[in-house]
Amino acid sequence: MSIQRFHVGARLSEMAIFNDTIYLAGQVADDPSQDITGQTTQVLAAIDRLLAEAGSDKSNILSTTIYIASLADFQAMNAVWDAWVVPGSTPPRATVEAKLAKPAYKVEIQIVAARR
Amino acid sequence: MSIQRFHVGARLSEMAIFNDTIYLAGQVADDPSQDITGQTTQVLAAIDRLLAEAGSDKSNILSTTIYIASLADFQAMNAVWDAWVVPGSTPPRATVEAKLAKPAYKVEIQIVAARR
Amino acid sequence: MSIQRFHVGARLSEMAIFNDTIYLAGQVADDPSQDITGQTTQVLAAIDRLLAEAGSDKSNILSTTIYIASLADFQAMNAVWDAWVVPGSTPPRATVEAKLAKPAYKVEIQIVAARR
Repeated sequence: MSIQRFHVGARLSEMAIFNDTIYLAGQVADDPSQDITGQTTQVLAAIDRLLAEAGSDKSNILSTTIYIASLADFQAMNAVWDAWVVPGSTPPRATVEAKLAKPAYKVEIQIVAARR
Repeated sequence: MSIQRFHVGARLSEMAIFNDTIYLAGQVADDPSQDITGQTTQVLAAIDRLLAEAGSDKSNILSTTIYIASLADFQAMNAVWDAWVVPGSTPPRATVEAKLAKPAYKVEIQIVAARR
Repeated sequence: MSIQRFHVGARLSEMAIFNDTIYLAGQVADDPSQDITGQTTQVLAAIDRLLAEAGSDKSNILSTTIYIASLADFQAMNAVWDAWVVPGSTPPRATVEAKLAKPAYKVEIQIVAARR
């Protein structure tokens, strides 16, 4: 079985697929000047784009880890999340507070999904 | 291949299975008023219940991530963990300190397991 | 399908393989008295050794989670990482700040890889 990699950079790739399982790099906002609502919207859009490249979509997510820089943003992040997930196909999720690679980042989301 | 989901809520599902691999949501205590011993016991019992629903058990865990709100609780958490794991089938594990979704939560455990 | 486990201890195993997917325990430095450069070098060497035991190598990494005790060490950790990864086969990665099991640990790395 081969590994497919997407957006392969010098430090990391944004996505790898093996055995019909899709592993995404932790996604952060393209524009970290935005608030938690804007950043979460951007992160979920990035996940949508990557899963589409893999021939999959958000109804096939198997595992999600959400790192949030401040739990004060938990409700606002969830509001965007709750509107984004597919009813009946919501993914397993863990959410913890952690400082992220750049101080401006408010949320980072790591995903494992299926390709069917 | 299909994805099976269990305890599907509006925000998340507690478990998804794909390709004989079982992904659990981060499990937290049902009663967060308990101390670390009580909470860890509850979390591991929740994992036992979910794995049983999947037709698996704790001898088949492939990966564990433990988020502990305070490393001061590390020894007490480990005492419960060490008594719970199956000798000879202990799982790979990472443990880090992180604040959790509710201030009362002292531990959250995320699991990937096999269905055989 | 069977599960293979390696370095099986009373608390955890260092590696499990199922369905040609390799799950490593969070790796930390053997000598935590070293600085971030030394610790990162040790952690990546430990990952190399485990993947070799699995019949794999660092070109087959599918997912990486890096927990760093202080983001002040982010650049120095990345310098070691960037020199270690295989050009063209860099893995998906998430990096967050988190306190680790012992105060002296500066970095812990969790890996999922493929066996081909």
